[in-house]
Amino acid sequence: MLVLGIDPGTATCGYGVITMQNGREKTLDYGAILTPPDWPMPRRLLHIGQALQMLIDRYQPDALAVEELFYQKNAKTVITVAQARGVILYTGAKNSLPIGEYTPLQVKQSVVGYGRADKRQVQSMVMRILHLKEIPKPDDAADALAVALCHLHTSRMKKAMGEEENGYL
Amino acid sequence: MLVLGIDPGTATCGYGVITMQNGREKTLDYGAILTPPDWPMPRRLLHIGQALQMLIDRYQPDALAVEELFYQKNAKTVITVAQARGVILYTGAKNSLPIGEYTPLQVKQSVVGYGRADKRQVQSMVMRILHLKEIPKPDDAADALAVALCHLHTSRMKKAMGEEENGYL
Repeated sequence: MLVLGIDPGTATCGYGVITMQNGREKTLDYGAILTPPDWPMPRRLLHIGQALQMLIDRYQPDALAVEELFYQKNAKTVITVAQARGVILYTGAKNSLPIGEYTPLQVKQSVVGYGRADKRQVQSMVMRILHLKEIPKPDDAADALAVALCHLHTSRMKKAMGEEENGYL
Repeated sequence: MLVLGIDPGTATCGYGVITMQNGREKTLDYGAILTPPDWPMPRRLLHIGQALQMLIDRYQPDALAVEELFYQKNAKTVITVAQARGVILYTGAKNSLPIGEYTPLQVKQSVVGYGRADKRQVQSMVMRILHLKEIPKPDDAADALAVALCHLHTSRMKKAMGEEENGYL
């Protein structure tokens, strides 16, 4: 199973591509889709959608994993991140990909085994589980790998328990 | 000039298509893109994007007009509306359409001439300006016609003042 994890954002949208081979997690790629702040928003959203489509074409993932968005203190940020997240969900659906959505709590519990883990603990565990030499940069890429891992583990557990894959359709 | 106005939403996304002929505003179409609440969000967003693409293909608008989104009391609603709005801006950009974004205040000032006008006053003015026999239903369609009118008037004023059309690129 190949999972493309996404940490939605407008300026920096993290992505991580992982797979499971012989019961071992393997990293295929990670990084961030960047858009310049001086670009008009529709153009930035177009770039995010097109870059995500390129990743889907290149890696042909079996599923997309996207973090749930919650209201933060900065209302403007929530709106722009949600707009980017809309384009991501739309692009996943357009490609008929099953989409897993996970809260930060679910991601932490899955990766660290502890829902109150801090950012640094999550990043260290991502590095260890994926056998990386250093913590992935930028933070958005590490977050994207974490949500991809959460989806991989959740799917494996569901499969072991005989549950159906949880697709969006 | 043909303008496609959109009032973003997930369950109900209003649209209105208007044009200016011989200095007179004319309505070509209005209505709402609906998505069932029991559909998963990616599927709903896909439907909104595809329905908007059909409207663009049918009417070949010169511009898209979309209302700005502000933080409301219900954070969850803001996030879902912003996700739909992201898909709308993305679809407009993909079609290389200039996109006008207007605050509710700008729409009210343009349509009623008074920024504190209430919903009913805006709807009545939309009906009168567009020579409609009744107030457009649902409310989302009337709001979409209002933002389209705002763009039409703003563009005309800019043209009269010798300003360039304000595209997104």
